[in-house]
This record gives sequence, structure tokens and C-alpha cells, in this order.
Amino acid sequence: MIAEIIAVGSELLTPFRQDTNSLYLTAQLNSLGVEVEFKTIVGDRLRDIVRVTSTALSRADVLFFSGGLGPTEDDLTREAVAETLGLGLRRDAEILESIERRFAERGWKMSANNAKQADVINGATVLRNDQGTAPGQWISGKANGEEKIIVLLPGPPHELKSLFESSVLERLRARVPKQVLASRVLKITGMGESACDARVAPIYKRYPDVSTTILAVPGEIQLHVSTRTQSAEAAEERLDKLVGDIEGELGDYVYSDNGDSLEQIVNYYLQMRNATIAVAESCTGGLVAERLTSITGSSRSFIGGAVVYSDALKTHLADVPADVIDVYGAVSEPVARALAEGIRKRCGCTLGLGITGVAGPTGGTAEKPVGLVFHALAGEHGTQVVKRNFAGDRARVRWFASQQALDMVRRKLM
Amino acid sequence: MIAEIIAVGSELLTPFRQDTNSLYLTAQLNSLGVEVEFKTIVGDRLRDIVRVTSTALSRADVLFFSGGLGPTEDDLTREAVAETLGLGLRRDAEILESIERRFAERGWKMSANNAKQADVINGATVLRNDQGTAPGQWISGKANGEEKIIVLLPGPPHELKSLFESSVLERLRARVPKQVLASRVLKITGMGESACDARVAPIYKRYPDVSTTILAVPGEIQLHVSTRTQSAEAAEERLDKLVGDIEGELGDYVYSDNGDSLEQIVNYYLQMRNATIAVAESCTGGLVAERLTSITGSSRSFIGGAVVYSDALKTHLADVPADVIDVYGAVSEPVARALAEGIRKRCGCTLGLGITGVAGPTGGTAEKPVGLVFHALAGEHGTQVVKRNFAGDRARVRWFASQQALDMVRRKLM
Repeated sequence: MIAEIIAVGSELLTPFRQDTNSLYLTAQLNSLGVEVEFKTIVGDRLRDIVRVTSTALSRADVLFFSGGLGPTEDDLTREAVAETLGLGLRRDAEILESIERRFAERGWKMSANNAKQADVINGATVLRNDQGTAPGQWISGKANGEEKIIVLLPGPPHELKSLFESSVLERLRARVPKQVLASRVLKITGMGESACDARVAPIYKRYPDVSTTILAVPGEIQLHVSTRTQSAEAAEERLDKLVGDIEGELGDYVYSDNGDSLEQIVNYYLQMRNATIAVAESCTGGLVAERLTSITGSSRSFIGGAVVYSDALKTHLADVPADVIDVYGAVSEPVARALAEGIRKRCGCTLGLGITGVAGPTGGTAEKPVGLVFHALAGEHGTQVVKRNFAGDRARVRWFASQQALDMVRRKLM
Repeated sequence: MIAEIIAVGSELLTPFRQDTNSLYLTAQLNSLGVEVEFKTIVGDRLRDIVRVTSTALSRADVLFFSGGLGPTEDDLTREAVAETLGLGLRRDAEILESIERRFAERGWKMSANNAKQADVINGATVLRNDQGTAPGQWISGKANGEEKIIVLLPGPPHELKSLFESSVLERLRARVPKQVLASRVLKITGMGESACDARVAPIYKRYPDVSTTILAVPGEIQLHVSTRTQSAEAAEERLDKLVGDIEGELGDYVYSDNGDSLEQIVNYYLQMRNATIAVAESCTGGLVAERLTSITGSSRSFIGGAVVYSDALKTHLADVPADVIDVYGAVSEPVARALAEGIRKRCGCTLGLGITGVAGPTGGTAEKPVGLVFHALAGEHGTQVVKRNFAGDRARVRWFASQQALDMVRRKLM
């Protein structure tokens, strides 16, 4: 069973607004075993909505519309769906009365344009909206000889969600083949997308019943795997096996198999090992501290740190000897090492992180180009330093450096 | 001229990911006077991409694809567009060589799957990608007797943007009817959306030729205004007048009228006043430092700071007297004040910022609930402290606190 989600609204075709209802609807549909194969965003023009509806009927079994059910002249989803299906609209007296009552209860007079929200497509089931004026509509029947389900939902997210849960979910469950969709997200850091795919493709190809998507985001690779069966146990067992095979191949490049972020994993290891950490950051400017402290409960392991942009402050807050900076320069292995060791000692922590580099876009030289970053992790038994050359703009270099630094902590504690 | 944007990628049909490239592309197309009338999101299935391409050709003049140009078997945009247009693909020796070189420069061996990124649709112009391996492609010609432009761009946003700016913008400008779209973004902080709209709606309604969108994002309101005319001067003059009227009404709540972020504005003021700043952060955990240092050139005014999660570190790195913490508690006005004054003095800066609060979700008490934050700004002539109670989750509280702190610096230097 294939679904298409159609978001209606000219504001969703501007640079400033984005359809987000489809993420919620996709999660709901997936949980019933229904895949979303297409999403379309269309403006408030009758002709365009008709065109989009007609296309969707030709390629999907279940059509979800969000938006375009309000009272203004721009709200045309009802009209367009009725026209595409060759059905008429009737004004429903009961809905009209409930809209009028809603206004009266607030002491307002209903303006005439609101009446169109009581228009119902012939044959549609009205889905009551407890959170707003415009009800949803459910239409099921044959179009071009095929069974279709068409659901019209209001655009405001809280109305859409409430209406979906109260009136759509069970109705839909009764209509779809009983199925279970199980899914996992593996997160991998320290290798590139194509290198990763080259290693895991031979594995996931042995699982034709599992759908695998490989996704590169800055500083990490995500593998989304999902499968659909009749029983939850069978699905979980199948995914356990695939995930086990992939982890066997990639080893500790996989940092999470339950969707956790790298900072969550690092916090988790720190607490499991009863370890504490402090950071001294130059080019990342607080990003590593910010990521670590974004996690609830991080205060148990994260003690604090210093953001040391100036050379003087590297000495003053993290005890980097001034002559080390003079001899090697602020962006150097010895300074990274001294930052990590200095902040560790000063904060009395199990671990100390030091980061220094050239974030760019200015400040690079032939010897020390933009993207050059030294990452140091100091512990009880010594200090490890990793030198990297990251490509990209300032934000990207900083992000990659924070990713590398956190990954060093993860690997140290694993 | 009508555009359709097609985002390709099965991950964009999951509940976890969303196409964001289309927002950037829409802004660019609008600036050339091209309206986006449809957006489509489709997975990595050849048959589906062909179907979507064919539909788009029937309703739009300009088609932009993002994604599906990578090295994996899932990357099928090239193949699908070629098939829809009835064109073949050729493997381009020059691109192949540049991909191989890219790998060699990093000391890696190119795996075989990367070669498909050198496949070019017959008749297409290759658009060089400086940020990644997969080049873009530009195809223009007749389809079903109508003139069409089809542009294939890589999915990673930094690649897409860089490629659009270097190779697409001018090529497209030469092909579209000359029109001017002028737009401005006003950013407002320190007031709510409905309060803001109540004050500015009577103003923008006097400008029916200007389209105004009001948009609430965490910690600020954005007013997007735009108008379309034949002459740039007329458009700019009209927007100058509207923006002047709005700024007259809202005064210093407006912190930017050219789209700059709050951290950019703060950096700009710091440099204009020849001032330097240091920060001592508790609950924001490095977020303020991270935001300030995200700006190129911030090292001229941002000296550094301390992230002081533990009480001991508040004393040790920012010289907060231990008895002040004992008497008033870590989350208190005197501690915020001492953080600001301590870090200012220690770093020898013009200004010192101190932030302490309860980010949540745990750690709140009846007296000091989650969301309570003290922000202090110390300068030559004394220290100002602002107490706020923010609603929302940990990320929201931290963001609002950073916004408040930066806004205090802006107002101080204005």
C-alpha cells in the first residue's frame, strides 16, 4: 500500500516556511506498514491542486492532504478534490451549526466566509475537529477501478495531530493489511560514505527483505534499515542479524545502533566509567562544550572548560607555556597537547580535551592551511594527538573538529 | 516562468529527514523573478523518479533536482532524467580524472563505484563541483515542443549552494525575463509574535504592493518584506520607506534589517567600538562563545571565556568568591554578577558576560524552577543583571538565554 502526502499552501512554497506535518504523518503511516513514496507541496491554486490530486491518484493508494480547509478564498482543498473525483459538495447543516456555536461561545459573530468550512464532498465521512473550526474528511472508494483512500486534514499541526489520532488512525488500521514495520539507525563516524558503502553493500544485499538507506551528514554516516513482516519478533530478529553483521564488518566505526547522537554516547560512556572531562577549545570556540552540555545530566561528568581564542588566554586559563606557543605557533601539536594536559590538571578531571586549528576562511598559510586542526586527549596514562585537514567552510571545519574530538573520547572509553 | 523543485532521496521520505535545499533554491529563484509552483519529494527508485520527472515536465518550465548524484547504487537521478528525456549517458573522462585526483590528493584509493559520478547526460553542460565529487548538470532544450531548463544539483547543502552560485545563477539569469524582486528581512528580539504583529500590521497594510510575512522563530521574530517591479530603484525606495516606518514603530527591538544574525550584529558593534569581550557560562555551556566565534573575524573582539559547570570551576576559572556561591546558590544574581566581573577582569576585556541558570529538565526547585536564568554584563561603569524565566525544554532555555545575553551586549554598544 503506497501513500502520498500533499501539503497545500502557498506559504509552503516560499523560502521561509516548510511543511512539517508530513514528518508526523510519515511516522504514523510507517507504523501501520504503509510507505510514503511521494510528497508534494502545492500552492493555493485550484487548477494546481486538481492537477496534483489527479497525479497522486495515478500512483498512490492512500492520499493525505494537509491544509487548505480554512475559511479564506485561498482555502481550496475541498473544492479541488471534489472536482478531481467528479463529485459535488454539499453544505452540512450540523457542521455549520457547530462552527456558529464555536464563534458564539467566544462572543464573536461568525463572518460569512466561515460557512465554506461546512462544505463536505459527497460521500465523505466528516472527521470532527476538536481543536479548530474546519473538520477533516475521509473518502474511500474506487477511482479508475482501483480502491483509494483520501483523507483531508487541517494544516495547523496541533489540529492535524489531534484529528489523526482521534479519527484517522483506527479507521486506517482497519483498512491496511496487518503488518509490522521495524527499523534501526546505525551511526558511523571516522570513514567516508563511499568507503562505508563499499564495505557494507555486500552485507545488506544479502538481506533483500530489508530496505537500507545510506545517508551522509557532516562528520558521520547513517545507515537506516527497516523491514516489514507479519510479526514483531521476526522483524526484530532479522534486523538484529543484519545490524550484527554490519557491526562485525565496521567494528568500532559504528558508534550507535539506536539513533543516539555522538554527544549522548560520549556522556553515556563518561558516566558508565565514572569519568569526568574538561575541554580547552580554540578554533571550535565552545562548540564541544556546547554539544556535551546539550545532554540532560551532563553535569555529572562535564566539569567545564575554557574557550581560549587569544594566545595569552591559552596560557592564562589552560596553562599552555608561553614559549611553546612562541616556538611552535598556536596551531600546533605541542599546543594541542598542552591545552589538553593543562585543562585536565586545572579542572582535576579524568580526561582533558584540547583543540586548536584554523577554522577559516581567513588565517590560513601554506604551512598551516584553513582546515588544519590538532585534537588532543589527555588521560592518566598520557596524551594522544590527532592531526586532521578538514575541507569546507568555517562552520564545517568547526563541526568536523568537534566530531573528531568527541570520537576520540568515545574510543578512549569504549 | 514556473519552476518545480524535486528532492530525490528515500531518506527524505522518512520521519527523520527533511528537504531543506528547496528553501535556498526558492529564495534564489524568487530573486530572479521565477516562482516555485510545485515541490516534489521522491525516493531512490528509478521508476518513481522517471514518473516524477515526466509529471514535472508537463507543468513546469524550470526543473531543479537535488540529490541522487552520489556514488552509490541508490543514486539514480542522472539515469532517471536521461531515461525520461530519451537521452543516453556518457562517461566523461575529464570528470573521472578529477574524481580520481581528488581521492589521490587525500591519499585514498578511489573505489570503483565512484566512477558513475562521471556519467553525463548527452547534451548536458557539466557544472563543476568544487566542494565534492559529483558535478552538477544543466540541460536546456525542447521537450514536447516547449522550452525547458533542467538542472541537476548534488544533495549536500554546501555543495548545492556553492555550485548554484558559481555555475547556475548567471546562466539562469540570462534565460529568464528581466524582473527585479527586492526583499528585506527585519529581525526583532525581545517581543512576542502577536504583540509585534498588532503593532506592525497597520503599517504594512498600507503597502498592498509589498508582500509581508511574519515568522516567529525561537527567541526572535522575522518580518520578510518583498516587492517586484521593473526597476531596482523603485523597489528599493518602496522597501526603504516601509522598513523606515516599521523601525519607527518598533525602535530598538529591531536588531537587523539586512538579515544579519544577532551574533553578527554583536560582532559588528564590538569591532566598531573597538571593544573586546569574554564570557563565563554555566547553563548555556559554551553556546554563547560558540555563537560569537561562529562569525569570521570574531577573534578581533572575542578573547575567550570559561564554561563553568561545577561550582569549584566558577571560582577557579572566573574568580567567583566561594562564599557568594555558598550564600546565594550557583543560580543567583550575585553569582551571575561575579561571573561577568570575574571573567572580564581575568581576560582584561572591555566587557564580561556571565550566565547562570537552570536549563532543565531536572535540577529545578520551587524557588529556582527550570527556565530561571540570570544574565550579567559587566563593563567599565558597572554591571547590569537581567533575570528571566524561559519556558520550554533544555535546548530552548539555553537558546533563549544565549539570545538574551547577546541582546544585552547589542543594547549596551548601540
